[in-house]
Amino acid sequence: MNGTPGRFLTIEGIEGVGKTTQVARLSKGLDERGIAHVVTREPGGTPLAERIREIVLNNAHGEALPPTAELLLMFAARAVHLANHIEPQLKAGRWVVCDRFTDATYAYQGGGRRMGTDDIRQLEAMVQGARRPDLTLLLDAPVDQALQRARQRNAGAAADRFESERAEFFERVREAYRARAAAEPDRIAIVDAGQSADQVAAEILTLLAARSWIS
Amino acid sequence: MNGTPGRFLTIEGIEGVGKTTQVARLSKGLDERGIAHVVTREPGGTPLAERIREIVLNNAHGEALPPTAELLLMFAARAVHLANHIEPQLKAGRWVVCDRFTDATYAYQGGGRRMGTDDIRQLEAMVQGARRPDLTLLLDAPVDQALQRARQRNAGAAADRFESERAEFFERVREAYRARAAAEPDRIAIVDAGQSADQVAAEILTLLAARSWIS
Repeated sequence: MNGTPGRFLTIEGIEGVGKTTQVARLSKGLDERGIAHVVTREPGGTPLAERIREIVLNNAHGEALPPTAELLLMFAARAVHLANHIEPQLKAGRWVVCDRFTDATYAYQGGGRRMGTDDIRQLEAMVQGARRPDLTLLLDAPVDQALQRARQRNAGAAADRFESERAEFFERVREAYRARAAAEPDRIAIVDAGQSADQVAAEILTLLAARSWIS
Repeated sequence: MNGTPGRFLTIEGIEGVGKTTQVARLSKGLDERGIAHVVTREPGGTPLAERIREIVLNNAHGEALPPTAELLLMFAARAVHLANHIEPQLKAGRWVVCDRFTDATYAYQGGGRRMGTDDIRQLEAMVQGARRPDLTLLLDAPVDQALQRARQRNAGAAADRFESERAEFFERVREAYRARAAAEPDRIAIVDAGQSADQVAAEILTLLAARSWIS
Protein backbone atom coordinates (compact mmCIF):
# COMPACT_ATOMS: atom_id res chain seq x y z
CA MET A 1 0.00 0.00 0.00
CA ASN A 2 2.93 2.34 0.74
CA GLY A 3 4.71 1.32 -2.45
CA THR A 4 7.33 -0.86 -0.75
CA PRO A 5 6.93 -4.60 -0.61
CA GLY A 6 6.24 -6.21 2.74
CA ARG A 7 8.79 -8.15 4.78
CA PHE A 8 8.58 -11.94 4.89
CA LEU A 9 9.32 -13.22 8.40
CA THR A 10 9.29 -16.86 9.42
CA ILE A 11 9.38 -18.36 12.90
CA GLU A 12 10.95 -21.78 13.31
CA GLY A 13 11.80 -24.26 16.02
CA ILE A 14 10.87 -27.67 17.39
CA GLU A 15 7.64 -28.41 19.26
CA GLY A 16 7.35 -26.62 22.61
CA VAL A 17 9.72 -23.68 22.04
CA GLY A 18 6.85 -21.18 22.10
CA LYS A 19 6.37 -20.41 18.40
CA THR A 20 2.63 -19.82 18.70
CA THR A 21 3.08 -17.41 21.61
CA GLN A 22 5.82 -15.48 19.83
CA VAL A 23 3.90 -15.24 16.56
CA ALA A 24 1.08 -13.59 18.53
CA ARG A 25 3.49 -11.30 20.40
CA LEU A 26 5.22 -10.26 17.18
CA SER A 27 1.85 -9.56 15.54
CA LYS A 28 0.91 -7.35 18.52
CA GLY A 29 4.24 -5.52 18.29
CA LEU A 30 3.70 -4.85 14.58
CA ASP A 31 0.13 -3.66 15.26
CA GLU A 32 1.40 -1.21 17.87
CA ARG A 33 3.76 0.23 15.25
CA GLY A 34 1.05 0.46 12.59
CA ILE A 35 2.69 -2.12 10.33
CA ALA A 36 0.10 -3.88 8.15
CA HIS A 37 0.71 -7.62 8.23
CA VAL A 38 -0.86 -11.06 8.10
CA VAL A 39 -0.10 -14.11 10.23
CA THR A 40 -0.09 -17.51 8.59
CA ARG A 41 1.36 -20.99 9.02
CA GLU A 42 2.81 -23.98 7.19
CA PRO A 43 1.90 -26.53 6.16
CA GLY A 44 -1.38 -24.86 5.24
CA GLY A 45 -2.20 -21.18 5.09
CA THR A 46 -5.08 -21.28 2.57
CA PRO A 47 -8.14 -23.58 2.38
CA LEU A 48 -6.61 -25.58 -0.47
CA ALA A 49 -3.20 -25.82 1.22
CA GLU A 50 -4.96 -26.89 4.44
CA ARG A 51 -6.59 -29.76 2.51
CA ILE A 52 -3.11 -30.89 1.48
CA ARG A 53 -1.84 -30.39 5.06
CA GLU A 54 -4.59 -32.71 6.28
CA ILE A 55 -3.27 -35.55 4.13
CA VAL A 56 0.22 -35.09 5.58
CA LEU A 57 -0.68 -34.69 9.25
CA ASN A 58 -3.79 -36.79 9.70
CA ASN A 59 -2.66 -40.28 10.67
CA ALA A 60 -6.18 -41.75 10.59
CA HIS A 61 -5.66 -43.50 7.24
CA GLY A 62 -4.08 -46.91 7.62
CA GLU A 63 -1.89 -46.55 4.53
CA ALA A 64 1.78 -45.59 4.80
CA LEU A 65 2.81 -42.20 3.41
CA PRO A 66 6.22 -42.73 1.75
CA PRO A 67 8.80 -40.06 2.69
CA THR A 68 9.10 -38.77 -0.87
CA ALA A 69 5.32 -38.38 -1.12
CA GLU A 70 5.29 -36.48 2.17
CA LEU A 71 7.96 -34.14 0.83
CA LEU A 72 6.07 -33.53 -2.41
CA LEU A 73 2.85 -32.80 -0.52
CA MET A 74 4.64 -30.30 1.72
CA PHE A 75 5.97 -28.44 -1.31
CA ALA A 76 2.62 -28.67 -3.13
CA ALA A 77 0.97 -26.99 -0.13
CA ARG A 78 3.80 -24.43 -0.10
CA ALA A 79 3.33 -23.64 -3.80
CA VAL A 80 -0.37 -22.98 -3.15
CA HIS A 81 0.38 -20.89 -0.06
CA LEU A 82 2.96 -18.78 -1.89
CA ALA A 83 0.91 -18.15 -5.03
CA ASN A 84 -2.46 -17.59 -3.38
CA HIS A 85 -1.52 -15.83 -0.14
CA ILE A 86 2.10 -14.94 0.65
CA GLU A 87 3.13 -13.34 -2.65
CA PRO A 88 -0.06 -11.25 -3.07
CA GLN A 89 0.26 -9.97 0.52
CA LEU A 90 3.93 -9.01 0.10
CA LYS A 91 3.15 -7.34 -3.22
CA ALA A 92 0.41 -5.31 -1.52
CA GLY A 93 2.99 -4.02 0.94
CA ARG A 94 1.90 -6.10 3.91
CA TRP A 95 4.33 -8.06 6.03
CA VAL A 96 3.84 -11.82 6.28
CA VAL A 97 4.60 -13.58 9.57
CA CYS A 98 4.66 -17.33 8.89
CA ASP A 99 4.76 -20.07 11.53
CA ARG A 100 7.23 -22.46 9.83
CA PHE A 101 8.43 -22.49 6.24
CA THR A 102 11.08 -24.29 4.17
CA ASP A 103 13.66 -24.35 6.97
CA ALA A 104 11.22 -26.67 8.74
CA THR A 105 11.31 -29.03 5.76
CA TYR A 106 15.12 -29.18 5.91
CA ALA A 107 14.94 -29.69 9.69
CA TYR A 108 12.08 -32.23 9.92
CA GLN A 109 12.31 -34.18 6.65
CA GLY A 110 16.03 -33.64 6.06
CA GLY A 111 17.33 -33.78 9.64
CA GLY A 112 14.58 -35.66 11.49
CA ARG A 113 13.62 -38.19 8.82
CA ARG A 114 17.12 -38.27 7.29
CA MET A 115 15.91 -37.61 3.74
CA GLY A 116 18.56 -36.39 1.32
CA THR A 117 18.64 -32.62 1.15
CA ASP A 118 19.25 -32.74 -2.62
CA ASP A 119 15.56 -33.46 -3.19
CA ILE A 120 14.58 -30.64 -0.84
CA ARG A 121 16.89 -28.20 -2.59
CA GLN A 122 15.48 -29.15 -6.01
CA LEU A 123 11.92 -28.68 -4.80
CA GLU A 124 12.77 -25.38 -3.09
CA ALA A 125 14.13 -24.05 -6.40
CA MET A 126 11.14 -25.40 -8.34
CA VAL A 127 8.52 -23.92 -6.00
CA GLN A 128 10.14 -20.77 -4.66
CA GLY A 129 12.52 -19.59 -7.36
CA ALA A 130 14.56 -16.94 -5.55
CA ARG A 131 11.97 -16.32 -2.81
CA ARG A 132 13.41 -16.74 0.71
CA PRO A 133 12.31 -15.26 4.04
CA ASP A 134 13.78 -11.82 4.73
CA LEU A 135 14.37 -12.93 8.30
CA THR A 136 13.92 -16.25 10.08
CA LEU A 137 13.64 -16.35 13.86
CA LEU A 138 14.82 -19.72 15.14
CA LEU A 139 13.47 -20.27 18.66
CA ASP A 140 15.99 -22.64 20.20
CA ALA A 141 15.89 -24.64 23.42
CA PRO A 142 17.16 -28.01 24.61
CA VAL A 143 14.93 -30.84 23.41
CA ASP A 144 13.97 -32.10 26.88
CA GLN A 145 12.77 -28.64 27.96
CA ALA A 146 10.82 -28.09 24.76
CA LEU A 147 9.16 -31.51 24.74
CA GLN A 148 8.10 -31.10 28.38
CA ARG A 149 6.32 -27.87 27.42
CA ALA A 150 4.75 -29.52 24.37
CA ARG A 151 3.48 -32.42 26.49
CA GLN A 152 1.92 -30.10 29.06
CA ARG A 153 0.20 -28.10 26.33
CA ASN A 154 -1.15 -31.22 24.62
CA ALA A 155 -2.30 -33.04 27.76
CA GLY A 156 -5.47 -34.89 26.82
CA ALA A 157 -5.18 -34.09 23.12
CA ALA A 158 -4.33 -36.70 20.51
CA ALA A 159 -0.72 -36.32 19.36
CA ASP A 160 -0.34 -35.76 15.64
CA ARG A 161 2.13 -37.77 13.57
CA PHE A 162 5.06 -35.48 14.19
CA GLU A 163 4.41 -34.79 17.86
CA SER A 164 4.34 -38.50 18.61
CA GLU A 165 7.94 -38.89 17.45
CA ARG A 166 10.78 -39.55 19.85
CA ALA A 167 13.23 -37.21 21.54
CA GLU A 168 16.04 -38.57 19.39
CA PHE A 169 14.17 -37.43 16.32
CA PHE A 170 13.81 -33.91 17.75
CA GLU A 171 17.53 -33.81 18.57
CA ARG A 172 18.22 -34.34 14.87
CA VAL A 173 15.66 -31.68 13.95
CA ARG A 174 17.20 -29.18 16.34
CA GLU A 175 20.70 -29.85 15.05
CA ALA A 176 19.54 -29.40 11.44
CA TYR A 177 17.94 -26.07 12.38
CA ARG A 178 21.11 -24.91 14.13
CA ALA A 179 23.28 -25.99 11.19
CA ARG A 180 21.13 -23.92 8.84
CA ALA A 181 21.42 -20.89 11.14
CA ALA A 182 25.20 -21.32 11.22
CA ALA A 183 25.29 -21.48 7.40
CA GLU A 184 23.03 -18.44 6.89
CA PRO A 185 23.68 -16.16 9.89
CA ASP A 186 22.40 -13.03 8.11
CA ARG A 187 18.99 -14.54 7.40
CA ILE A 188 18.48 -16.85 10.38
CA ALA A 189 18.71 -15.46 13.92
CA ILE A 190 18.88 -17.91 16.82
CA VAL A 191 16.77 -16.72 19.76
CA ASP A 192 17.18 -18.38 23.16
CA ALA A 193 13.73 -19.81 23.87
CA GLY A 194 14.74 -20.63 27.46
CA GLN A 195 14.13 -16.98 28.33
CA SER A 196 10.74 -15.75 29.51
CA ALA A 197 8.13 -15.05 26.82
CA ASP A 198 8.56 -11.31 27.49
CA GLN A 199 12.30 -11.54 27.00
CA VAL A 200 11.95 -13.52 23.77
CA ALA A 201 9.36 -11.08 22.39
CA ALA A 202 11.62 -8.12 23.25
CA GLU A 203 14.64 -9.75 21.62
CA ILE A 204 12.69 -10.34 18.41
CA LEU A 205 11.65 -6.67 18.24
CA THR A 206 15.27 -5.68 18.88
CA LEU A 207 16.35 -7.84 15.92
CA LEU A 208 13.85 -6.03 13.67
CA ALA A 209 14.95 -2.61 14.97
CA ALA A 210 18.60 -3.50 14.36
CA ARG A 211 17.67 -3.92 10.66
CA SER A 212 15.87 -0.54 10.75
CA TRP A 213 12.63 -2.32 9.78
CA ILE A 214 10.82 -0.95 12.83
CA SER A 215 11.63 1.80 15.29
CA MET B 1 4.84 -65.99 -7.21
CA ASN B 2 6.62 -67.81 -10.05
CA GLY B 3 9.92 -66.19 -9.17
CA THR B 4 9.95 -63.72 -12.07
CA PRO B 5 8.84 -60.15 -11.57
CA GLY B 6 5.64 -59.03 -13.25
CA ARG B 7 5.47 -56.81 -16.31
CA PHE B 8 4.48 -53.18 -15.92
CA LEU B 9 2.16 -52.10 -18.75
CA THR B 10 0.66 -48.64 -19.11
CA ILE B 11 -2.11 -47.47 -21.42
CA GLU B 12 -2.05 -43.86 -22.55
CA GLY B 13 -3.97 -41.51 -24.79
CA ILE B 14 -6.28 -38.50 -24.76
CA GLU B 15 -9.90 -38.61 -23.63
CA GLY B 16 -12.16 -40.70 -25.86
CA VAL B 17 -9.60 -43.05 -27.44
CA GLY B 18 -11.02 -46.06 -25.61
CA LYS B 19 -8.49 -46.58 -22.81
CA THR B 20 -11.07 -47.92 -20.33
CA THR B 21 -12.38 -50.45 -22.87
CA GLN B 22 -8.91 -51.61 -23.81
CA VAL B 23 -7.74 -51.94 -20.21
CA ALA B 24 -10.70 -54.29 -19.64
CA ARG B 25 -10.02 -56.22 -22.85
CA LEU B 26 -6.33 -56.60 -22.01
CA SER B 27 -7.22 -57.80 -18.52
CA LYS B 28 -9.54 -60.41 -20.04
CA GLY B 29 -6.81 -61.49 -22.45
CA LEU B 30 -4.34 -61.96 -19.59
CA ASP B 31 -6.94 -63.86 -17.56
CA GLU B 32 -7.51 -66.23 -20.47
CA ARG B 33 -3.77 -66.95 -20.53
CA GLY B 34 -3.58 -67.47 -16.76
CA ILE B 35 -1.38 -64.42 -16.19
CA ALA B 36 -1.86 -63.03 -12.67
CA HIS B 37 -2.26 -59.27 -12.86
CA VAL B 38 -3.89 -56.22 -11.34
CA VAL B 39 -5.54 -53.28 -13.08
CA THR B 40 -5.03 -49.80 -11.67
CA ARG B 41 -5.08 -46.15 -12.72
CA GLU B 42 -3.41 -42.78 -12.27
CA PRO B 43 -3.77 -40.40 -10.67
CA GLY B 44 -4.95 -42.62 -7.84
CA GLY B 45 -4.63 -46.35 -7.45
CA THR B 46 -4.72 -46.59 -3.64
CA PRO B 47 -7.07 -44.96 -1.09
CA LEU B 48 -4.40 -42.44 -0.08
CA ALA B 49 -3.43 -41.67 -3.68
CA GLU B 50 -7.13 -41.26 -4.52
CA ARG B 51 -7.40 -38.62 -1.79
CA ILE B 52 -4.58 -36.73 -3.50
CA ARG B 53 -6.24 -37.27 -6.90
CA GLU B 54 -9.40 -35.69 -5.55
CA ILE B 55 -7.54 -32.45 -4.80
CA VAL B 56 -6.19 -32.33 -8.36
CA LEU B 57 -9.35 -33.25 -10.26
CA ASN B 58 -12.16 -31.86 -8.13
CA ASN B 59 -12.87 -28.34 -9.34
CA ALA B 60 -15.39 -27.57 -6.59
CA HIS B 61 -12.98 -25.46 -4.54
CA GLY B 62 -12.86 -21.83 -5.61
CA GLU B 63 -9.12 -21.47 -5.08
CA ALA B 64 -6.69 -21.67 -8.00
CA LEU B 65 -4.33 -24.66 -8.10
CA PRO B 66 -0.99 -23.33 -9.40
CA PRO B 67 0.56 -25.50 -12.16
CA THR B 68 3.60 -26.38 -10.04
CA ALA B 69 1.37 -27.49 -7.18
CA GLU B 70 -0.66 -29.64 -9.56
CA LEU B 71 2.54 -31.27 -10.79
CA LEU B 72 3.77 -31.97 -7.26
CA LEU B 73 0.42 -33.49 -6.27
CA MET B 74 0.47 -35.76 -9.33
CA PHE B 75 3.92 -37.05 -8.38
CA ALA B 76 2.98 -37.34 -4.70
CA ALA B 77 0.06 -39.57 -5.69
CA ARG B 78 2.42 -41.50 -7.98
CA ALA B 79 4.95 -42.03 -5.16
CA VAL B 80 2.17 -43.47 -2.99
CA HIS B 81 0.84 -45.64 -5.82
CA LEU B 82 4.30 -47.03 -6.64
CA ALA B 83 5.35 -47.76 -3.05
CA ASN B 84 2.05 -49.14 -1.80
CA HIS B 85 0.67 -50.97 -4.83
CA ILE B 86 2.67 -51.17 -8.08
CA GLU B 87 6.07 -52.22 -6.70
CA PRO B 88 4.68 -54.86 -4.29
CA GLN B 89 2.55 -56.37 -7.08
CA LEU B 90 5.47 -56.54 -9.53
CA LYS B 91 7.69 -58.01 -6.84
CA ALA B 92 5.08 -60.71 -6.19
CA GLY B 93 5.26 -61.67 -9.86
CA ARG B 94 1.96 -60.12 -10.91
CA TRP B 95 1.63 -57.91 -13.96
CA VAL B 96 0.37 -54.37 -13.45
CA VAL B 97 -1.86 -52.79 -16.09
CA CYS B 98 -2.09 -49.06 -15.37
CA ASP B 99 -4.48 -46.60 -16.98
CA ARG B 100 -2.13 -43.63 -17.43
CA PHE B 101 1.28 -43.03 -15.84
CA THR B 102 4.15 -40.56 -16.19
CA ASP B 103 3.82 -40.23 -19.97
CA ALA B 104 0.45 -38.62 -19.20
CA THR B 105 2.20 -36.03 -17.03
CA TYR B 106 4.56 -35.15 -19.88
CA ALA B 107 1.61 -35.01 -22.28
CA TYR B 108 -0.94 -33.14 -20.14
CA GLN B 109 1.17 -30.91 -17.91
CA GLY B 110 4.16 -30.62 -20.25
CA GLY B 111 2.38 -30.53 -23.62
CA GLY B 112 -1.14 -29.44 -22.73
CA ARG B 113 -0.34 -26.93 -20.01
CA ARG B 114 3.03 -26.01 -21.48
CA MET B 115 4.95 -26.55 -18.24
CA GLY B 116 8.70 -27.00 -18.60
CA THR B 117 9.64 -30.65 -18.88
CA ASP B 118 12.76 -30.07 -16.73
CA ASP B 119 10.58 -30.06 -13.61
CA ILE B 120 8.79 -33.21 -14.76
CA ARG B 121 12.07 -34.97 -15.45
CA GLN B 122 13.44 -34.03 -12.00
CA LEU B 123 10.31 -35.32 -10.29
CA GLU B 124 10.29 -38.51 -12.36
CA ALA B 125 13.86 -39.24 -11.21
CA MET B 126 13.03 -38.34 -7.60
CA VAL B 127 9.91 -40.53 -7.42
CA GLN B 128 10.65 -43.40 -9.77
CA GLY B 129 14.41 -43.83 -9.76
CA ALA B 130 14.98 -46.17 -12.72
CA ARG B 131 11.41 -47.53 -12.75
CA ARG B 132 9.72 -47.16 -16.16
CA PRO B 133 6.87 -49.12 -17.77
CA ASP B 134 8.04 -52.24 -19.59
CA LEU B 135 5.62 -51.35 -22.37
CA THR B 136 3.36 -48.36 -22.98
CA LEU B 137 0.41 -48.67 -25.34
CA LEU B 138 -0.43 -45.25 -26.78
CA LEU B 139 -3.98 -45.30 -28.16
CA ASP B 140 -3.92 -42.63 -30.82
CA ALA B 141 -6.73 -40.98 -32.78
CA PRO B 142 -7.43 -37.53 -34.23
CA VAL B 143 -8.61 -35.13 -31.54
CA ASP B 144 -12.00 -34.40 -33.10
CA GLN B 145 -12.89 -38.12 -33.29
CA ALA B 146 -11.73 -38.76 -29.73
CA LEU B 147 -13.51 -35.76 -28.21
CA GLN B 148 -16.74 -36.69 -29.94
CA ARG B 149 -16.58 -40.12 -28.29
CA ALA B 150 -15.73 -38.55 -24.92
CA ARG B 151 -18.68 -36.16 -25.19
CA GLN B 152 -21.12 -38.98 -26.03
CA ARG B 153 -19.86 -41.02 -23.08
CA ASN B 154 -20.13 -38.10 -20.67
CA ALA B 155 -23.53 -36.84 -21.82
CA GLY B 156 -25.31 -35.61 -18.74
CA ALA B 157 -22.29 -35.98 -16.47
CA ALA B 158 -20.37 -33.02 -15.09
CA ALA B 159 -17.09 -32.55 -16.95
CA ASP B 160 -14.01 -32.66 -14.73
CA ARG B 161 -11.29 -30.02 -14.94
CA PHE B 162 -9.35 -31.74 -17.67
CA GLU B 163 -12.29 -32.88 -19.76
CA SER B 164 -13.64 -29.34 -19.91
CA GLU B 165 -10.50 -28.13 -21.68
CA ARG B 166 -10.48 -27.13 -25.31
CA ALA B 167 -9.66 -29.08 -28.45
CA GLU B 168 -6.50 -27.01 -28.93
CA PHE B 169 -5.28 -28.25 -25.56
CA PHE B 170 -5.85 -31.86 -26.59
CA GLU B 171 -3.99 -31.27 -29.86
CA ARG B 172 -0.94 -30.29 -27.80
CA VAL B 173 -1.43 -33.33 -25.53
CA ARG B 174 -1.66 -35.66 -28.52
CA GLU B 175 1.46 -34.18 -30.12
CA ALA B 176 3.41 -34.54 -26.85
CA TYR B 177 2.35 -38.19 -26.61
CA ARG B 178 3.39 -38.85 -30.21
CA ALA B 179 6.72 -37.09 -29.68
CA ARG B 180 7.44 -39.34 -26.71
CA ALA B 181 6.58 -42.43 -28.73
CA ALA B 182 8.93 -41.26 -31.50
CA ALA B 183 11.72 -40.75 -28.94
CA GLU B 184 11.21 -44.12 -27.23
CA PRO B 185 9.94 -46.49 -29.93
CA ASP B 186 11.02 -49.63 -28.06
CA ARG B 187 8.99 -48.78 -24.97
CA ILE B 188 6.02 -46.91 -26.44
CA ALA B 189 3.88 -48.53 -29.14
CA ILE B 190 1.38 -46.36 -31.04
CA VAL B 191 -1.90 -48.21 -31.59
CA ASP B 192 -4.44 -46.82 -34.08
CA ALA B 193 -7.50 -46.17 -31.93
CA GLY B 194 -9.60 -45.49 -35.02
CA GLN B 195 -9.91 -49.25 -35.51
CA SER B 196 -12.74 -51.25 -33.94
CA ALA B 197 -12.36 -52.19 -30.27
CA ASP B 198 -11.82 -55.82 -31.35
CA GLN B 199 -9.05 -54.82 -33.73
CA VAL B 200 -7.33 -52.64 -31.09
CA ALA B 201 -7.54 -55.44 -28.50
CA ALA B 202 -6.08 -57.95 -30.97
CA GLU B 203 -3.25 -55.59 -31.92
CA ILE B 204 -2.32 -55.12 -28.25
CA LEU B 205 -2.13 -58.91 -27.70
CA THR B 206 -0.01 -59.20 -30.85
CA LEU B 207 2.41 -56.62 -29.43
CA LEU B 208 2.77 -58.68 -26.24
CA ALA B 209 3.22 -61.90 -28.20
CA ALA B 210 5.89 -60.25 -30.36
CA ARG B 211 7.88 -59.70 -27.15
CA SER B 212 7.30 -63.36 -26.19
CA TRP B 213 5.53 -62.19 -23.02
CA ILE B 214 2.40 -64.16 -23.91
CA SER B 215 1.70 -66.91 -26.39
